[in-house]
Amino acid sequence: MNNFTFYSPTEFVFGRGTENQVATLALKHGAHRVLIVYGGGSVVRSGLLGRVEEALRKSGLPFAELGGVQPNPLDTKVYEGIDLCRREGTDFLLAVGGGSVIDTAKAIAAGVAYDGDFWDFYVQKARVQSALPVGVVLTIPAAGSEGSGNSVITNSRTQQKLGIREPELLRPRFAVMNPELTYTLPPYQTAAGIVDMMAHIMERYFTNTPDTETTDRLCEGTLKAILTEAPRVMADPQNYGARANIMWCGMIAHNGTCGVGNEEDWASHGMEHEISALYDVTHGAGLAVIFPAWLTWMASHHAGKVAQYAQRVWNVPDNGDQRAMALEAVERLKGFFRSIGMPVNFRELGIEHPDIDLMVKRLHVNKGELLGCYVPLDCHATKEIYELAL
Amino acid sequence: MNNFTFYSPTEFVFGRGTENQVATLALKHGAHRVLIVYGGGSVVRSGLLGRVEEALRKSGLPFAELGGVQPNPLDTKVYEGIDLCRREGTDFLLAVGGGSVIDTAKAIAAGVAYDGDFWDFYVQKARVQSALPVGVVLTIPAAGSEGSGNSVITNSRTQQKLGIREPELLRPRFAVMNPELTYTLPPYQTAAGIVDMMAHIMERYFTNTPDTETTDRLCEGTLKAILTEAPRVMADPQNYGARANIMWCGMIAHNGTCGVGNEEDWASHGMEHEISALYDVTHGAGLAVIFPAWLTWMASHHAGKVAQYAQRVWNVPDNGDQRAMALEAVERLKGFFRSIGMPVNFRELGIEHPDIDLMVKRLHVNKGELLGCYVPLDCHATKEIYELAL
Repeated sequence: MNNFTFYSPTEFVFGRGTENQVATLALKHGAHRVLIVYGGGSVVRSGLLGRVEEALRKSGLPFAELGGVQPNPLDTKVYEGIDLCRREGTDFLLAVGGGSVIDTAKAIAAGVAYDGDFWDFYVQKARVQSALPVGVVLTIPAAGSEGSGNSVITNSRTQQKLGIREPELLRPRFAVMNPELTYTLPPYQTAAGIVDMMAHIMERYFTNTPDTETTDRLCEGTLKAILTEAPRVMADPQNYGARANIMWCGMIAHNGTCGVGNEEDWASHGMEHEISALYDVTHGAGLAVIFPAWLTWMASHHAGKVAQYAQRVWNVPDNGDQRAMALEAVERLKGFFRSIGMPVNFRELGIEHPDIDLMVKRLHVNKGELLGCYVPLDCHATKEIYELAL
Repeated sequence: MNNFTFYSPTEFVFGRGTENQVATLALKHGAHRVLIVYGGGSVVRSGLLGRVEEALRKSGLPFAELGGVQPNPLDTKVYEGIDLCRREGTDFLLAVGGGSVIDTAKAIAAGVAYDGDFWDFYVQKARVQSALPVGVVLTIPAAGSEGSGNSVITNSRTQQKLGIREPELLRPRFAVMNPELTYTLPPYQTAAGIVDMMAHIMERYFTNTPDTETTDRLCEGTLKAILTEAPRVMADPQNYGARANIMWCGMIAHNGTCGVGNEEDWASHGMEHEISALYDVTHGAGLAVIFPAWLTWMASHHAGKVAQYAQRVWNVPDNGDQRAMALEAVERLKGFFRSIGMPVNFRELGIEHPDIDLMVKRLHVNKGELLGCYVPLDCHATKEIYELAL
């Protein structure tokens, strides 16, 4: 186990009706002037935005609004938000939505407090020194951004999709999590979210760090809970218990609980970011294509932990052949993804002829010569993995 | 899953050499004048106290000291600490030790900020409204007090051993956790700590709340990690990886991760508190005696979740007979406790003739007519359970 700091000071307020506490929470966590950030029309249509506005009004909290955040959120919206905050004297960001909305709010929060271009943080020209506080009303359990200090933004000019990780400065101060707000999520979004949270766990799980038994067991347990709850939520979108479990798993998957003490991998996320940056697919669907390919490649190059995963998560019997066990886990994972309506290769993702050479080139320009830690991947390896996903 | 708030804002700084960061952390979390609270001679002998003092001195942080906290810590030490803080103008408590030391520091932290008798909080005459911040250098992984808002104190006049739970006000601001500091723990202390953390998980796990799959899996995973790591740490007390896993499990077991969304039971802890209040045994050893008895009683009265526990934690095959599965889990749990040198009945605990009638009487005076939630226990049930522990 490596040395680590685990500091997750977000106040998670979970359950039915908890969105009614949003103004109280914003005040408690220091808000005086709020910018509400949201995405498309669903939070408007559902009446959630109206209820949040009403709550702030009743508490005498002035607010401005920034709508229209898109999936794979763009830098242009961040610039718009930074300008708006400066004009309005905003001191608190309230994200009402899913990962894209939260990530945009975090980028604005960091950008407002910075004299230069906020994109400097994403290309590692600068580190975030301070940021406005962010609160969340979560409507899409997937990205885990409600409990993390991470933010991923796409540059609209260069198509670079890059992330930052500021566990201390960019973690939301509070996150309101009402599973009922996720009842109306379309099945595809629900399923893509499930893949995303599984991927967040697996990126942390596949490591060569020794003595990670506790973290391993927490990863495996959360994955098993997802495997139990996912079919229930797909079959019955208004099943409160199943929605609640999936929502909480999404947070656990990404607030650090599943990775403390590990060197983490994250190669698959890097590989997926090139897919969704070029083809604008849903992040979770892209991950459903990449992860089985990554695991298949690992079965032949470093099967050890994949065999443990096969046995403990997928109940594959230990027959002593780690490669075979790993490949059996890949088959079961693919079967699971298909069962919830996810694609497991480029063709099923709707990309018949992906430009693999371009993705590989951009990947290593953006992320460096070697990707990941479980087996550090050079451009030949990442090309093979993209090809395994055809 | 019930509505819940999960707010665990402790900064955990984990790993080798992390005690060197203690002054930096204290300053970061607002300390100006520190009271160091510690227990017996081991932190003196090991040189740890000296290093902490030196670090504070170097950072220009003035401090006073309160040593001599005993296991099953007493109110008298709390009064002493409150007086000392008021005299010295202390604004930060630094606990260097295990659960007893941390619980004492928390009680002082709450008491300093209160005009009345701090014991009012423990008999529920008053709620904590504010408290001084507490930091921790952990030397005994067991109580999980480094990540919880709980504190248990024994009243020296009445022998009442009572706890408070203030998840927001009494959680430590930071906890330094260096597994190397636990190398010199005697085997009995190590084993009792392992029982205590297992009990913290099981108190949360045995619930009738529906749809707790995620929390169940996190509980089961942490228990399985403990079962793997405990024999390693008993066989080789200086095994860093095993010590590290056990130390982190102790935190996970008690900061809320394993209980969110559940109605929790805690009957066994209540029953144990009467044993250690009357006979001054080690809390973990008392739990090793009570928990198998509690589970045995449950096998005949409400076996369902115990059978799940048998299957998922102890690998008991599902033969359709929940009572038999539950009883098999009890046998395996007892075997495990014995394997790490723990007693599993009153005799082995050194109490040939426990005064069960007195314990039952005091238990229900202190804790009310009914104890726990999995099966609420009246005085006849608790008597039967104490008798099963003979």
